[in-house]
Amino acid sequence: MVFLNRIVRAGISSSSRNKIIKCRAAVAWEPGAPLQIEDIEVSPPQSNEVRIKITHTSLCQTDITFWQNKGMKHLFPRIFGHEAAGIVESVGEGVSNLCEGDHVIPIFTGECSDCKYCKSQKTNLCGSLRVNPEYAGVYGGDGTRFKQGSVEISHFMGTSTFSQYTVVNKGCLAKVPKRAPLDKVCLLSCGITTGVGAVWNVAKLQKDDTVAIFGLGTVGLAIAQAAKLSGASRIIGVDINSEKHELGKQFGITDFLNPLDHDRPIQEVIMELCQGGVDYSFECIGSAALMQAAFESTHNAWGVTIVAGVPSGPATLSTDPVKLLFGHSLKGTIFGGYKPSQIHELVEKYMRKEIMVDEFVTHTLPFEKINDAIQLLMQSQCLRCVVSMH
Amino acid sequence: MVFLNRIVRAGISSSSRNKIIKCRAAVAWEPGAPLQIEDIEVSPPQSNEVRIKITHTSLCQTDITFWQNKGMKHLFPRIFGHEAAGIVESVGEGVSNLCEGDHVIPIFTGECSDCKYCKSQKTNLCGSLRVNPEYAGVYGGDGTRFKQGSVEISHFMGTSTFSQYTVVNKGCLAKVPKRAPLDKVCLLSCGITTGVGAVWNVAKLQKDDTVAIFGLGTVGLAIAQAAKLSGASRIIGVDINSEKHELGKQFGITDFLNPLDHDRPIQEVIMELCQGGVDYSFECIGSAALMQAAFESTHNAWGVTIVAGVPSGPATLSTDPVKLLFGHSLKGTIFGGYKPSQIHELVEKYMRKEIMVDEFVTHTLPFEKINDAIQLLMQSQCLRCVVSMH
Repeated sequence: MVFLNRIVRAGISSSSRNKIIKCRAAVAWEPGAPLQIEDIEVSPPQSNEVRIKITHTSLCQTDITFWQNKGMKHLFPRIFGHEAAGIVESVGEGVSNLCEGDHVIPIFTGECSDCKYCKSQKTNLCGSLRVNPEYAGVYGGDGTRFKQGSVEISHFMGTSTFSQYTVVNKGCLAKVPKRAPLDKVCLLSCGITTGVGAVWNVAKLQKDDTVAIFGLGTVGLAIAQAAKLSGASRIIGVDINSEKHELGKQFGITDFLNPLDHDRPIQEVIMELCQGGVDYSFECIGSAALMQAAFESTHNAWGVTIVAGVPSGPATLSTDPVKLLFGHSLKGTIFGGYKPSQIHELVEKYMRKEIMVDEFVTHTLPFEKINDAIQLLMQSQCLRCVVSMH
Repeated sequence: MVFLNRIVRAGISSSSRNKIIKCRAAVAWEPGAPLQIEDIEVSPPQSNEVRIKITHTSLCQTDITFWQNKGMKHLFPRIFGHEAAGIVESVGEGVSNLCEGDHVIPIFTGECSDCKYCKSQKTNLCGSLRVNPEYAGVYGGDGTRFKQGSVEISHFMGTSTFSQYTVVNKGCLAKVPKRAPLDKVCLLSCGITTGVGAVWNVAKLQKDDTVAIFGLGTVGLAIAQAAKLSGASRIIGVDINSEKHELGKQFGITDFLNPLDHDRPIQEVIMELCQGGVDYSFECIGSAALMQAAFESTHNAWGVTIVAGVPSGPATLSTDPVKLLFGHSLKGTIFGGYKPSQIHELVEKYMRKEIMVDEFVTHTLPFEKINDAIQLLMQSQCLRCVVSMH
């Protein structure tokens, strides 16, 4: 850390290499307290790390979940954000696959490419760069690269994209072609990818399969579009916000159910709609009760429930094991089963207009208004709000 | 039912066709009360039904579970038994695939060959001959074929093999070659098949996979032998009866754990033994607590738990949904995913000495001592007790 006394201002390019960068970040000082946009210092990347200029970040429910989490108070101050895009500013020793100026999207579940997990086709989780919201530093590194004076600021999920500059492990990045618009492909670094991957990699949906989706946010609607592209015969969207009905149709929803409109459990309604139940149900909220409803909505000989929603706290899923015996099964996914090295496939699909991404961007805001973006998401008034960082 | 007044005694062959047969059966008059061996009348097979002379029946825990079930008192008197072998005595109209003298094993989960379930490769459950311990008649038929005077006696699981003669749907039978010993292949009509199918059809185990088996009865030990044949690198047997350690070795167990020998949850011990957890865990008892332990013993990125044990009453499996997100999954199986029409493959494997069956027969008893067989199984003193019916 011989360069700690060399500081440059954000925006200054190659000359910043090996120097501390001073830039603006949205710092969470307390769980649930509004983010404060203020100057911080970002250290140069260490071995196997990359420093990125974040151009755009979008917001995801998981940021809000952990920002509000009082049990993690010891990890504050903290810089949240994990769904974003940016440009490589500089690379640390041992980084050969990326160089200054490359366009990238940070990925909160890394890939060291070397462990038995990375070498397995059975998982997209890495043994050493494993997603961990309780980890305060760069994945695979020691300590933080963020400071304000003498105050250390924690990272979040190895990405911390609510900062104009951030440092991530080289395994937590996916390179994207320069022709790909960063203000759109940022969405592929979490929500959309989780949704389409849940359908294509985890469920491996087949033509004519039937689907129920619990929660029509970005993940849920991405599931709908992937199911439609796979030829699903029926795509039932379930949400307590009836405005999602019209919106859902754009993404492939064929039937809409608002549980508040029914005086019996929604799984019973679904079982009636699709005799025997749906082939696949997806839970996208993180609610144990909804997971149970999703489980009880599936076909009584081969129904599969896939959990994609992250619970906001300790949760217990209660199921009747006899349903397991009779062919219902339960799975889950983080990031839709995609390894970072596979994300270029999705970017190419988007560039060929084979998958919708732009349609998920319902709002754009400047960095100064990031707290408004949080409110929009919390009040279910947006799918994705893309924040311009510079 | 024009033949109701024509009665023959058991043992008289072809002349019995279309007549009521009087034979001996072990009747359960009350839940949990000792079975009474007495004379009953067995009606001729109706359309699509087959009457079988049961030569041997073995006992399975599921018989005991439902025999003891006080909530099913309304279904008594009842003839239990579902793991057996026999010889076709006569067939009803519409039965073309079987004829008098054929050797068969009854299968409690039928196959009509015509419904969307039977036509699907995703399940072995049939839409119309679906296993149902609450059903009192022949699967796919109306009412019972068993009587004692004016008293109707309920069937069990479409098979009721604790009788010298029984009537089953043609879809609830697997034909076996005459050279196959009926006193051994009777075991393929439930326990062994459930175990090997859980490994080969449901888990689809690969070479070098690691396995934990909770409960080393017949199902558990059949899982062990199938896992060994699939090349599993480690097969951990878990049982509170330490005598199962030596026994388990014969079937492929490489490690044995008695939870009573440890002062911490057995899943923690397994996680230590197999760093990251086992690839597959199997629950063979029907205990929700064991299912949870099995779930928590599996690999933290791709572990699969397969439930094969039938709960003895209402049960709730509590799981942490975050484990689902991190790649643990939950499945279950009835009869190991085998359709009745596939059982001949296992019989052939046995005849070629590729799978062990004889080794599961620890006791044999005459029909008169069937209550002793129940006691042996309840006291975990046997794997399978084969009862000779004539």
